[in-house]
Formats: sequence, C-alpha cells, structure tokens
Amino acid sequence: MKIEVMKALMEDNASNAQKLRNLFSEKEVLVLNLISSPGSGKTTLLEKTLAELKDRYSIGVIEGDITTARDAERLTQFNIPQVVINTDGACHLNANSIEKALESFDLDALDLLFVENVGNLVCPSEFDIGEYAKIAMVSTTEGDDKPAKYPLLFQEAKLALLNKTDLIPYTNFNSDAFYRDLQNINPGIPVLEMSCITNDGLSGWFEWIIAELKKRRIHND
Amino acid sequence: MKIEVMKALMEDNASNAQKLRNLFSEKEVLVLNLISSPGSGKTTLLEKTLAELKDRYSIGVIEGDITTARDAERLTQFNIPQVVINTDGACHLNANSIEKALESFDLDALDLLFVENVGNLVCPSEFDIGEYAKIAMVSTTEGDDKPAKYPLLFQEAKLALLNKTDLIPYTNFNSDAFYRDLQNINPGIPVLEMSCITNDGLSGWFEWIIAELKKRRIHND
Repeated sequence: MKIEVMKALMEDNASNAQKLRNLFSEKEVLVLNLISSPGSGKTTLLEKTLAELKDRYSIGVIEGDITTARDAERLTQFNIPQVVINTDGACHLNANSIEKALESFDLDALDLLFVENVGNLVCPSEFDIGEYAKIAMVSTTEGDDKPAKYPLLFQEAKLALLNKTDLIPYTNFNSDAFYRDLQNINPGIPVLEMSCITNDGLSGWFEWIIAELKKRRIHND
Repeated sequence: MKIEVMKALMEDNASNAQKLRNLFSEKEVLVLNLISSPGSGKTTLLEKTLAELKDRYSIGVIEGDITTARDAERLTQFNIPQVVINTDGACHLNANSIEKALESFDLDALDLLFVENVGNLVCPSEFDIGEYAKIAMVSTTEGDDKPAKYPLLFQEAKLALLNKTDLIPYTNFNSDAFYRDLQNINPGIPVLEMSCITNDGLSGWFEWIIAELKKRRIHND
C-alpha cells in the first residue's frame, strides 16, 4: 500500500512538473533549482547573483523553507518578485507547491526564476519541479565524500557548484577524491569552484547563467 | 489516502520504537541517535569517541547511509561491533531497520550503542528509533540560523553539539544569534561546543556520555 501511494504521488508530481516545464519553455523563463545541504551557501549565492544580474535581467525567486522567511528577508533589498513556500515540516518542494507560487509572478515579464529548495541533500533530488536544471551545490567544509554518499543529486544535476573554496586550507578536503567520485557518478558534469565570501569564481557562474539564457532564446526563436 | 498511510506508518514506527526502548532499558544499553546535516562531523566525532572510550566500555555502532560503507570503513580500526544500514535512497532510519540491525549485536554485552543517522537535518528527526536521546549536531560553517530554520530536531534533542568551532574566525557565525534561537526553541537544552579536529571541548562530550551511563545503571539497580 505504501509503495502504491508513493508511486501514484510520484507520477502525479512528474505529470505536473511536465506541465510546468512546457509553460516555462513557452514563456522563455529559465528555471534553476538550487539544491544543497543546509548552510552550503545557497542564499549567499543568490545575494551575489541578484546584485550582479538584476539590472540586466528580470529575475524572480521562490524560497523553499520548512519554516521562517529568513532567507527571503535577506533578498528583499533587491526588490525583485519573491515568494516564500513554507513546507511546514516537509523536506522538499514539489511541482504542486511551485505551481501555486507561480500565481504571484508575471511569467511573461520574467527571464530567470531561481528556486532555492529546502536545505537537504536527499529528498529534493527526487522531485521534478519543471526546472530546466537542478544545480547541486556542496561546500568544501562538508567534506569531499558527498557525491559518493548522496549520489542521486549529483546524477540529476546539470551543474555542480563547489562553494567555500576559501576554507580549503583549514579543512581536510581532498579535491582529487571529490572530482574522482563526481566524474564516476556523472561523467562530464561541469563544476564551478567558488567562494561566495571572497567572490572568487563567481564570474564563471554568471557566465554560465547568461549563456543558458541566450541558448534558450535562440532555441525558441 | 496519503495522510492515512503516513499516519499508519508513523504509528507503526512509534510502537516498534517503544518496544526497542524497553529492550534497551532492560539490557542497560545507552542508545544515542546522532543527527545532523551531511558533513557536520558525525563520523569524526565517533572516531574521537571510540578512541577515548572503547577500552572502558563495550560500544557498538549502527551506521545509516543511503549508499556506500564509507563511514563504517573509517571506524573498522577500532574493532568494535558495527552494522551498516544502506537505506537505498531513503532519507532516514526507522525503528524497523534498527530492529533488524540489532540481530548482529550481543545486547547483553553492550553498554553504549551509537546510531549515526543519514546526513539530513529534516527527516530523521521525525522518526523515533527507541533511542535514549537524539543528539543534534551542527557545525559553525553551516551558519547560526539552523535551529530557527530546522526547529524539529532541536526541539526533540536532549543535547546539542556545536562543532567546528576552530573555523569560527573564518566565517560570519554569530554565537549570540545561535544561542538565542536555540533557547527559544528548546529552553535549557545543554550545548557542547567542540572542534573534532583540534579536540577542543571533546572532554565535555565524554563526560556527558559517562554521566549518562552511570545514571542508567543507578536507575536500573
């Protein structure tokens, strides 16, 4: 009975997610689903990204959190459309919750929509929300073994971000081990190293986003 | 239907967990359920703890991981009874999986059983596994806002561990904010600050365990 219900829920989510994907494609909105452990730096990355790109593109944010609007409050300074989804205990966002949040956005006016998922390296990876790409973020202080121990996210992601490179000297993070595991799990996945505190490597992230925005337009023209 | 099934599953788990709790009490085994985000330092803490206590007490470990036996491999040097539970994608351990793992231990001979749960600040908190205490571990590099954003674990825990204090100088971790939130969520919860790399603060953790082992014996005599 449990398995049947889970299967029905997943199928329901997949079909909702496909509807959303079609909608995002039609409206030319690039949707990026940021997934990581708690405290890897997703909100800080969004702060830096909004500061850099908000005057060039029309950007929206959906903040997924179990409770509180703390992450969203950090982004209000940028005056962009933003919705908080409080999951009230649930460990991930799903297509249904995203669909409801979309009522607050003008998709015709939007270029780019970031979804900051609930801080969790496990469950959000299982739920398609119609995004163009899942972005797997991991910080050096979490250790080099995260791709091997939590493989699904790194299999599903189109891009991996290795954050907090400024702290490598103070940890036992082994870059070779990290890359070896990651390439076994998802051969060829691009990785961007960065520090959201020192700003090292952020330009590569901005360029990746801009290139994706351009691809989407060419594809749809 | 979903809610009914979830309710049935949770009730089933709670009743299994109560059976295990009775068993652990009868056998005088102190069971500690370590819960944190991925990479907060649970396995390193176990390495330090086994090195310190394994000659004084009979200790076992259950390692919960989605896949791989990497954490368990780090502990084989201590020659203690150990079982790996690979959840195969599932985001938490439950009482049923613990009950199966117990077949590999001689509970009559055991003083202390550590359960290292799946790295996840959300889901493991919802599942009672018959433990004496949930231990909430958080590292300074994850930021000071984790208790406020993931309150259930910190409500449920009997003890909080703040790890990686050696990295505070390199982060924007705000101790006052951390303690204020935590005391709002669980007034009076004890907190032990530590660095599993420099060993600062570990003695307080060893003393906490030893005091709990003594309490248990007095209570049962």
